[in-house]
Amino acid sequence: MHITLEQAEKAISAARIKAIEIKTQMCLAILDSGGHLKSFDRMDHAYVGSIDIAIKKARTAVYFGLPSGEIGKLSQPQGPLYGIEQTNEGLITFPGGLPIVNKDGVMIGAIGVSGSTIENDHLVAYAALEALDLTDMPDHPKRT
Amino acid sequence: MHITLEQAEKAISAARIKAIEIKTQMCLAILDSGGHLKSFDRMDHAYVGSIDIAIKKARTAVYFGLPSGEIGKLSQPQGPLYGIEQTNEGLITFPGGLPIVNKDGVMIGAIGVSGSTIENDHLVAYAALEALDLTDMPDHPKRT
Amino acid sequence: MHITLEQAEKAISAARIKAIEIKTQMCLAILDSGGHLKSFDRMDHAYVGSIDIAIKKARTAVYFGLPSGEIGKLSQPQGPLYGIEQTNEGLITFPGGLPIVNKDGVMIGAIGVSGSTIENDHLVAYAALEALDLTDMPDHPKRT
Amino acid sequence: MHITLEQAEKAISAARIKAIEIKTQMCLAILDSGGHLKSFDRMDHAYVGSIDIAIKKARTAVYFGLPSGEIGKLSQPQGPLYGIEQTNEGLITFPGGLPIVNKDGVMIGAIGVSGSTIENDHLVAYAALEALDLTDMPDHPKRT
Repeated sequence: MHITLEQAEKAISAARIKAIEIKTQMCLAILDSGGHLKSFDRMDHAYVGSIDIAIKKARTAVYFGLPSGEIGKLSQPQGPLYGIEQTNEGLITFPGGLPIVNKDGVMIGAIGVSGSTIENDHLVAYAALEALDLTDMPDHPKRT
Repeated sequence: MHITLEQAEKAISAARIKAIEIKTQMCLAILDSGGHLKSFDRMDHAYVGSIDIAIKKARTAVYFGLPSGEIGKLSQPQGPLYGIEQTNEGLITFPGGLPIVNKDGVMIGAIGVSGSTIENDHLVAYAALEALDLTDMPDHPKRT
Repeated sequence: MHITLEQAEKAISAARIKAIEIKTQMCLAILDSGGHLKSFDRMDHAYVGSIDIAIKKARTAVYFGLPSGEIGKLSQPQGPLYGIEQTNEGLITFPGGLPIVNKDGVMIGAIGVSGSTIENDHLVAYAALEALDLTDMPDHPKRT
Repeated sequence: MHITLEQAEKAISAARIKAIEIKTQMCLAILDSGGHLKSFDRMDHAYVGSIDIAIKKARTAVYFGLPSGEIGKLSQPQGPLYGIEQTNEGLITFPGGLPIVNKDGVMIGAIGVSGSTIENDHLVAYAALEALDLTDMPDHPKRT
């Protein structure tokens, strides 16, 4: 099941409110469960370079069913997944991408946020999940 | 001068209303004057293949300061710009992409619409310009 | 809803039987509704160049919810969608790709076949839909 | 000599049995000795991001005639092959890719597995070689 545009707008709207609250300018991307762009907003004065990063953070999250930063723990030099970031036309292995998983444990999409520190990026992405009341994250979300 | 997020949302909102009115499901992309993604919405049930086309229609419009369909008149076999669609990582040479030009004749962005016939795609893109009260199209918009 | 591996195997198995029956060697690709590879077989002595074509035929079908050959009718020189084949990292606009749509009208994936004439390619792809009892093709399949 | 479809299916079938036995969901790719896709299966609920990794693990194995993880020992920062993963449109330098070498020492293809830990990925790839009774790995397999 894919995220609807109504859900995507609710998520982006909440993320923007949080971004303004913490005085940041963000790129905000929502992808569906197939990794395809559903909705996107670039706030005024946000970095142009963050467009690609926000989208790739979301793609990383939805392609592997986990927060983008989790992969970064395994992809460092000497780590088991060293170099994984150059697969799938480019992954992002630092925080700011979160899968969106519905109440049945089915992944319906992902959000990617880029534009500030990774702590702020994550905070804003998390605000989107809270707005959807979908903050639970199973170990291995279902894909239907 | 780049399009603001407020303007982009107004444009996309008007385009969606028109798309619903004519019973279509569209991908709607707004780029700034540098050709970078500002805002995007994919309506539910719209083609996944239209994401790329909507964005490339808008890019074509903003890279050359004219409606995407205008290039198609010149890019046919035997035409003077035959093959131009392969440049710039892919242009779209059929209608649905329109530059957004402000009252001073300065191009501030573009809209690209894809998901139905080219007539419908153009109609929806034009509705966005009307919502911004920016339907005038100089021969060669200024770039600032 | 995505195609399951069980369905994908049934589809590929039926396609191979048909390919053998008409004395051809085919590449057979099944994608899920997001356009991602689910199952693939290259029959012995099939063209290596058909791998990419089979996958792109299926991608074309699932990205636009219609048989790949339908786009070819619109993408010829002077046609309304001239040049569309260079979007989405390459589409195939001749027959051999078919969307797989379930009984509820929801697109769950696509099959792409390449290796012989376009008539044979289509025939083999169609045999896969028959095996799944999913030959009905709505005008605009739902995407959920 | 290239791997046959019969061998490829035997290999993938054994790999899937092992994957189920250890409770994982894998992407399983078989390439021929030219590095071209022969057969592929994505088990239900496997990561979409693992498609590309499984194929690249197999490509790495068949392009260099050794297990993908062996390259990782040489490609770390300060190592002699630092950065090699960026060549050949992307290599994978962690385990899960194994060359398939016949009784005459001729490389006939490779298997790539992705979807779990690198230990599990390797285990599942190795099960495929066992099913083919081709676990011997010469230092430098012949290429015919």
